[in-house]
Amino acid sequence: MFDSADLEHKIDKLTYRHEVPHLREALLNAQYDLKQDARFSVVVVIAGVEGAGKSETVNLLHEWMDPRFLHTVAFDEPLGEERERPRMWRFWRALPPKGKIGILFGAWHTEPVLSRVFGKISKAELEKRVAEIMRFEQMLADEGTLVLKFWFHLTKKQQRKRLRTLEKNRATRWRVTKRDWKYFDRFDAFEETAVQLTRQTSTGEAPWIVVAGADEPYRNLTVGRTLLAAIRERLADKPVDRLPDKNPPLLPPVDHVTVVRALDLDQPMTEEQYGEALEKWQGKLAKLARDAKFKKSGVVAVFEGNDAAGKGGAIRRLTQALDARFYDNHPIAAPSDDERAQPYLWRFWRRVPRLGRFGIFDRSWYGRVLVERVEGFCGEPDWMRAYGEINDFERELVEHGLVVSKFWLAIGKEEQLKRFRAREKTSFKRFKITEDDWRNRKKWDAYEGAVCDMVDRTSTEYAPWTLVEANNKYYARIKVLRTLCKAIEARFETR
Amino acid sequence: MFDSADLEHKIDKLTYRHEVPHLREALLNAQYDLKQDARFSVVVVIAGVEGAGKSETVNLLHEWMDPRFLHTVAFDEPLGEERERPRMWRFWRALPPKGKIGILFGAWHTEPVLSRVFGKISKAELEKRVAEIMRFEQMLADEGTLVLKFWFHLTKKQQRKRLRTLEKNRATRWRVTKRDWKYFDRFDAFEETAVQLTRQTSTGEAPWIVVAGADEPYRNLTVGRTLLAAIRERLADKPVDRLPDKNPPLLPPVDHVTVVRALDLDQPMTEEQYGEALEKWQGKLAKLARDAKFKKSGVVAVFEGNDAAGKGGAIRRLTQALDARFYDNHPIAAPSDDERAQPYLWRFWRRVPRLGRFGIFDRSWYGRVLVERVEGFCGEPDWMRAYGEINDFERELVEHGLVVSKFWLAIGKEEQLKRFRAREKTSFKRFKITEDDWRNRKKWDAYEGAVCDMVDRTSTEYAPWTLVEANNKYYARIKVLRTLCKAIEARFETR
Repeated sequence: MFDSADLEHKIDKLTYRHEVPHLREALLNAQYDLKQDARFSVVVVIAGVEGAGKSETVNLLHEWMDPRFLHTVAFDEPLGEERERPRMWRFWRALPPKGKIGILFGAWHTEPVLSRVFGKISKAELEKRVAEIMRFEQMLADEGTLVLKFWFHLTKKQQRKRLRTLEKNRATRWRVTKRDWKYFDRFDAFEETAVQLTRQTSTGEAPWIVVAGADEPYRNLTVGRTLLAAIRERLADKPVDRLPDKNPPLLPPVDHVTVVRALDLDQPMTEEQYGEALEKWQGKLAKLARDAKFKKSGVVAVFEGNDAAGKGGAIRRLTQALDARFYDNHPIAAPSDDERAQPYLWRFWRRVPRLGRFGIFDRSWYGRVLVERVEGFCGEPDWMRAYGEINDFERELVEHGLVVSKFWLAIGKEEQLKRFRAREKTSFKRFKITEDDWRNRKKWDAYEGAVCDMVDRTSTEYAPWTLVEANNKYYARIKVLRTLCKAIEARFETR
Repeated sequence: MFDSADLEHKIDKLTYRHEVPHLREALLNAQYDLKQDARFSVVVVIAGVEGAGKSETVNLLHEWMDPRFLHTVAFDEPLGEERERPRMWRFWRALPPKGKIGILFGAWHTEPVLSRVFGKISKAELEKRVAEIMRFEQMLADEGTLVLKFWFHLTKKQQRKRLRTLEKNRATRWRVTKRDWKYFDRFDAFEETAVQLTRQTSTGEAPWIVVAGADEPYRNLTVGRTLLAAIRERLADKPVDRLPDKNPPLLPPVDHVTVVRALDLDQPMTEEQYGEALEKWQGKLAKLARDAKFKKSGVVAVFEGNDAAGKGGAIRRLTQALDARFYDNHPIAAPSDDERAQPYLWRFWRRVPRLGRFGIFDRSWYGRVLVERVEGFCGEPDWMRAYGEINDFERELVEHGLVVSKFWLAIGKEEQLKRFRAREKTSFKRFKITEDDWRNRKKWDAYEGAVCDMVDRTSTEYAPWTLVEANNKYYARIKVLRTLCKAIEARFETR
């Protein structure tokens, strides 16, 4: 969930100063139109790490917007009569009426995370709470509420630095309490639980928007623009006989720093190094596949990537190490008519490998949130809900014993052009380059945005994405083999 | 969930023989139109108690319908390669394509119930499985699949009788196995788990239809008519830019035997008996309300009923026993503008009592599935999802420590007329009778159907409905007081 937010995000002051007056005006106008329209209310949930700018953002929104149509309620430990009411009572009291915006600061997500981290509730209790939250938010969405959930994030390093900086300065020292350091000690546990809770409660109707909190201009623009876009989109949808579409939009990071762009695509590896490494890791893989433990496990390996990024080559280096009787290679193209007559995951369920085998997918179910999203082959509500559906699907695979490894092979735009041209020149490779490839290339940015959302929303602790820097094919192939071997070894150790 | 199905249901043979040819023809036509339309598939889930006619019904549907567009898969313990795939794999394989009907016999609901009954999975694991099932079925509905789930029910008495009858006859003795009696020994546990699972997985998009299984004509007509109505309704909905509405219709029982009609509304109680009983139970209630344990509990008492059924009188007999500082009486009328600007449960959350207090609701959130349903004040998807939302709401109240008691005060149509006329004659009661009352009376049957669905779908082990026979006001008032006292006592014992 936090892959994108883990990156260093920054907006320079000039850009910020230029942008803010426009944004403020637009937000005010949106508020008035919302008030006028009065078909829906907006719930803005503010949650996340201490010190990541939550309260600053809330204050800022009050400064920017018309306070008559904006109401904030902050929640800490339940007190007084709140304790004498069921858990959700105080949140219900804070819901805004149609036409208004309600900011719920530290709403129903915070307490379950803290309770779990400090061992007050069991894993099973947390799952129950997650299910309750999902049903509650589903109800809000069904009632027409626009639910925007912002999770403010800091990396551990950023948090440590923040606390130390505050402590060093006499004027700010008082702001660092024992509780801050106590929480910091549990940072890893907190983040692990937060990842799980935010991922599971990130539905199509109410997805989490994770905000990198370290840079103030960045986080202000992120929240402001998202709020604006979501209200505007909903206002623009004027159906006669039904509520407007339920999905708030997913925007690209305001500074255009993405997990893909952050990669250093040119990684060094010579042909000689490659030859040695290939022998080593193919041997390792062959041995793992013959291990007795593998009979109770199995592998689902997913290959996605830019066109011409070398998926096929990487897959061949993998299958070279395997007994042909024990793997199936599934090249995934557009669905057949039979497949179109079924839910989109159906054709992949059919191809789930038996235990003790490899299922290798050259493109996969991620087409739903990549090509189908970008090309508009399915509606926004459909690909929005697909993140959760895919996470559920892969969780079932992993709980069954399979290792699920997912690789995004990334090359640069220049490198792609080079490869396209080379393919056109080589007669036996010409079939590999089509009109589609050139067309996709024109939508580079849209695809890149879709890839980043995909990684953020489907990289799970049980089925993580591996981003593979693939300008150098040698390096890419070895990274794939090595990652897969380590994933299988890790599985052997835990089961 | 099984309140209606617990009643004796029967269709006489003449009616059945007359109905069947029409139904068969209509089902065949629906099949062809479905094939032609091909926008959605129909998943028919068959589950429930052994011996309640599941396989007979499946055979019958194959006899009645065109087998080219109907496919059945029966599931028992997973075998062979099924075991080497994740749990849901075999169900995915069985999904019908668009334009066809797939009958899934003993699908994904059976195994969790049995595993829980035989102690193979914990309560928490069952909750997890329920959440998984809900997400899976939500996905099917989102993909446009019409999901019809039939739960075949027998009462314990019916089951015992069935097994004994089979054993007595030499020709059928072989059909009763040790497993049947082993299952019978666990009947109560099975039913308890089945109630929980069916209630929780009964969503607006995929509600359970509980079929009383003892009478063959009754169950055949129930399944056949429901299937027909659901397909027809969906085919008739021809939106241009979206999938058809997701709710299959809820039909009244084919024999019109309902939980309300099954009541003997005239219960005996003389004025003298009433005087004594009133003193006894009001005293009891007063004592319970002053008990130290009550400070950590509290009561939510819901009164619904036919117009003029005596809700007000019953409530007064209750409040007479209480200290005015410790209860709030909430007469619920049409929502105000403020309330309309919020999700419908909002105005009730505001009125949730503190611990140690009584909240008495003269009409309630059940308006959503009664008047709002019958009068069309909200859409079908809205009241269909309300059952689950209400169950969630009341579960939160109960988990917080409150006792939730719900009373449906039922009077006969004749009795109502008498009371209406009496009210019109008595000047100080004239305000109690309005045009609305006469109008509602004309929709008696529609309201009765809504009441039965409400009881079936929201009478839970933690917040059960009590149906109160109310032609005799004395009897009704005492039954309310007694039920409430016993509910509070039961709570004291468990907490």
